[in-house]
Amino acid sequence: MDASDVLSLCKRRGFLFPSFEVYGGVAGMYDYGPLGTALKNNIVEIWRRLYTLGEGFVEIDSETIGPEIVFKASGHVDEFADKMVKCKSCEEPYRADHLVKDKHPNPGVLKEKELDDLIRANGIVCPACGGELSSVEEFNLMFKTVIGPGSGRVGYMRPETAQGIFVNFPNLYRYNREKLPLGVIQVGRGYRNEISPRQGVIRLREFNMMECELFVDPEDKTWPRFDDVKDEKLKLLANDGRDIEITVGDAVEQRVICNQVLAYFMWFTQEFLKAVGVDGARMRFRQHEKDEMAHYAADCWDVEALLTYGWTEIVGIADRGCWDLSRHSQFSGADMTAFKRFDEPKEMEKDVIKPKYDLLGPKYKGKAGKIGKAMEAADPSSMKDGAITVEVDGEKFTLGKETFEVARVKEKVTGVKVIPHVIEPSHGLDRITYTVLEHAFSQNKESAVLRLSPAVAPIKVGVFPLMNRDDLDSIAEEIEQEIRYSGIETNYDDSGSIGRRYARMDEIGTPWCITVDYQTKEDGTVTIRERDTNKQIRVRAGDVVNVVRAALCGMDLQQFAVGTEPSQ
Amino acid sequence: MDASDVLSLCKRRGFLFPSFEVYGGVAGMYDYGPLGTALKNNIVEIWRRLYTLGEGFVEIDSETIGPEIVFKASGHVDEFADKMVKCKSCEEPYRADHLVKDKHPNPGVLKEKELDDLIRANGIVCPACGGELSSVEEFNLMFKTVIGPGSGRVGYMRPETAQGIFVNFPNLYRYNREKLPLGVIQVGRGYRNEISPRQGVIRLREFNMMECELFVDPEDKTWPRFDDVKDEKLKLLANDGRDIEITVGDAVEQRVICNQVLAYFMWFTQEFLKAVGVDGARMRFRQHEKDEMAHYAADCWDVEALLTYGWTEIVGIADRGCWDLSRHSQFSGADMTAFKRFDEPKEMEKDVIKPKYDLLGPKYKGKAGKIGKAMEAADPSSMKDGAITVEVDGEKFTLGKETFEVARVKEKVTGVKVIPHVIEPSHGLDRITYTVLEHAFSQNKESAVLRLSPAVAPIKVGVFPLMNRDDLDSIAEEIEQEIRYSGIETNYDDSGSIGRRYARMDEIGTPWCITVDYQTKEDGTVTIRERDTNKQIRVRAGDVVNVVRAALCGMDLQQFAVGTEPSQ
Repeated sequence: MDASDVLSLCKRRGFLFPSFEVYGGVAGMYDYGPLGTALKNNIVEIWRRLYTLGEGFVEIDSETIGPEIVFKASGHVDEFADKMVKCKSCEEPYRADHLVKDKHPNPGVLKEKELDDLIRANGIVCPACGGELSSVEEFNLMFKTVIGPGSGRVGYMRPETAQGIFVNFPNLYRYNREKLPLGVIQVGRGYRNEISPRQGVIRLREFNMMECELFVDPEDKTWPRFDDVKDEKLKLLANDGRDIEITVGDAVEQRVICNQVLAYFMWFTQEFLKAVGVDGARMRFRQHEKDEMAHYAADCWDVEALLTYGWTEIVGIADRGCWDLSRHSQFSGADMTAFKRFDEPKEMEKDVIKPKYDLLGPKYKGKAGKIGKAMEAADPSSMKDGAITVEVDGEKFTLGKETFEVARVKEKVTGVKVIPHVIEPSHGLDRITYTVLEHAFSQNKESAVLRLSPAVAPIKVGVFPLMNRDDLDSIAEEIEQEIRYSGIETNYDDSGSIGRRYARMDEIGTPWCITVDYQTKEDGTVTIRERDTNKQIRVRAGDVVNVVRAALCGMDLQQFAVGTEPSQ
Repeated sequence: MDASDVLSLCKRRGFLFPSFEVYGGVAGMYDYGPLGTALKNNIVEIWRRLYTLGEGFVEIDSETIGPEIVFKASGHVDEFADKMVKCKSCEEPYRADHLVKDKHPNPGVLKEKELDDLIRANGIVCPACGGELSSVEEFNLMFKTVIGPGSGRVGYMRPETAQGIFVNFPNLYRYNREKLPLGVIQVGRGYRNEISPRQGVIRLREFNMMECELFVDPEDKTWPRFDDVKDEKLKLLANDGRDIEITVGDAVEQRVICNQVLAYFMWFTQEFLKAVGVDGARMRFRQHEKDEMAHYAADCWDVEALLTYGWTEIVGIADRGCWDLSRHSQFSGADMTAFKRFDEPKEMEKDVIKPKYDLLGPKYKGKAGKIGKAMEAADPSSMKDGAITVEVDGEKFTLGKETFEVARVKEKVTGVKVIPHVIEPSHGLDRITYTVLEHAFSQNKESAVLRLSPAVAPIKVGVFPLMNRDDLDSIAEEIEQEIRYSGIETNYDDSGSIGRRYARMDEIGTPWCITVDYQTKEDGTVTIRERDTNKQIRVRAGDVVNVVRAALCGMDLQQFAVGTEPSQ
């Protein structure tokens, strides 16, 4: 098997279509066809419910276009760039690090000059035409636009959904009745104007993400349900070279993973991925190398899936510290803190300014009172050269050290403001969807089978009349409609042999097929056939909805069997 | 009530947040907070299921950025513009038609010159600063960007999701086993770079749409389930001035609505809107005026909802004819037809070219055979001045009339190619969500109540301990978790009086609240209180999941009542 087998099935059967194909397509853009959309929606719904109903987190939906300052604060305007070279003759652009991937163990970390030297030293030329390559330059990967008419306001398509959560922190914190932890998820589009995208849906210019930003107390990275999962296992490839299978509990105890919250959500992510059909044997956690990790990240792990492309990142899980909220606080001036209430109020010492009202009165007359109050409210650390400046009714007054004393006082403090830390599981939805397809794909004698789990399969039941006559078709149509109206996705197929129809359903991962045959007219039973075992039983036609519901819950269908089992 | 009451509740309680508020916001952009996202997702899910499970349509998910040619073909590059004026002193931009809305019955249809004249004649100045206004100019409303590095390729953010369906027609038609009708839906973002957006979420620069493109046989606009709904009523405001309530059947018979498919989906849309909570008494269909309708549209109706802003379009339902597919066929050269098979093959006459091989041979030698074949394949209507030009092995040959005859022959034809017509129900999801909120909003003595239908309510059950002690809290937490794990959205609240907690739940539209009190510890019962009647009964704590499920199905809860009813 290679990726083209999977992609060709995806296109032929309606999972994925190259975008704008009638116009020759656009590199790095794919549309989800009917089956792909249903598969993707099913994956999203499982993920969403695990976080909202399972963990009690909330979901938001923020804008995909943002003004420049947001991405200045997030660092994307300055840092979200790839190194590019262009062919001097045919003008084809390339990612410089991709051209030297055999010449360096980790070319993604190299600077322009280092890449340039490596290209020259190895005499690398344009892979398309053999032309000479330009020198390496940075290319910012955000799609740029203008908000509003005329010269308007520079805006960018968001490179990730996360910033929409961070900038809403004050509103979300209020919504959560000012409590931590606060978990917020978002599902939506991200954009990355790739220099030269290839590799099917692995490297897309427009992609789908599922991100969670979990705001926690910076001094408390324990997690209430940690003990429930501490004996569960994770496969880890740590950045100290260890390649181990280890329990969640040991990983934290031995400080392979830096804290409980991170470790819990690594396990949580693994369970989600397995639930939607990523093969546990082809999945691992790889810790970022020190020079690969963002400077602010305390720890970062990728979930990698083994694909025909090699080990590929499908989720990243990071402890981002206070970086994001600090930056937005700094750029916006907004208060991005949480208030951490002490169990009991603490007595703390602090310096306060005590104005000498007897000196202020004669000098400032009617304003002396207000000036005094403003001085009392001022922070002694804002003194300059021993003087303090206050503003009263729009007027500034600078008061020399002779006009006040600084006194140390004790006061009851109920808590402190802290900038929460962020734990972020960030999922590449298209890559996960593709992984599910590739891990489910197997080649039979003549055709392919997608062994999708029933929970994510786009179609749950195929319904066929054996023949297109003698009322078999109308009975089958009625059954198909009954199942569909009960909320279960179906596919009605009346063309070709039953064998061919099974094969078509196998190819799109449909777990069960129901056939209406001549016996149906005699005894009111139909056959139901299971994709993976190829086993058939007869069940009462009037029971089909219950049978399919039971099957979807993983129950053995034998209990519904009536009469003799037909030979296969 | 006015819109600001609703919007202020929306912000305070976490339905909607102005986007990028910490940076001062961006006009025409709103984020959905936790409750808004849940409400919107519920509306989407009902809509999606009605179309896919109910009608058997398929869903796709296409890209939001598209290359320029797509929007050339769709007409948006040339036509998707508003008329703008700017203030010459303060530079504030305005929509010209909005400035003259009191001076003309339908300013949206006026041309630049007419708007200019109207502005001058009425001495209209900048509403902000009184400055003189510039002359009127067109402003294209698409967000523009560049795909790929360097000068790249011009791209636009899609102004509607529909084009992604149209350009995929050949793939989708193949997916549907080459049959019509073919119904395709899409849910996703659309973008419109408004000149000066106001009015809350009614006029957004980035908005959410739910669109259906239904491809039908141009000669058959009947609909199989039409008879089932022909006695249902619609409120119509036709463009001949009639304001009537009429049955679906009569509307088509009297040609108020131009065909069955359109009428059926108008009814279908009305039922969807009522199901999610749009008030039937504040909803009507308004037919587009002749000068308002796109030139290619056979008919077009807006669903309008009565809001505090006045009657507002929330859905548009149009018969777009063959416009979209024809244009994409013309611009891409792709075959956008469906094959309409005749019931029986028909014998048809056609003209064919019969080469005179005896003349071709001597002149063209070895190539004569290939040239002859090419002539036979050529369409006689492509003759120019009696000569025909064909291409063989990349070389062109023009052949005079002496080299062939045109003969009329009969042939069996199994069908014809037709360009399908499109019926399009296009939903403004943000406007629908807002309408649901406004129609559910009512002001009580002290606080507001959202009478959301349980199907769309973001939270289905509030769970409260009467006191935060004596195990009442741990029992309540357990109940809350049990309900949530069963797949039903909950909210746990333990602060303030029970009355205040009811009020908080009323304000966000939660239909039921469960309270754990001291009697719970004695007899294992809890109270369940209904939002709209304020009625309370006691039910067994062990039954709560079943009780809530029954309530969600609209069942009377009295059957679950145990013991005496408490006074309220």
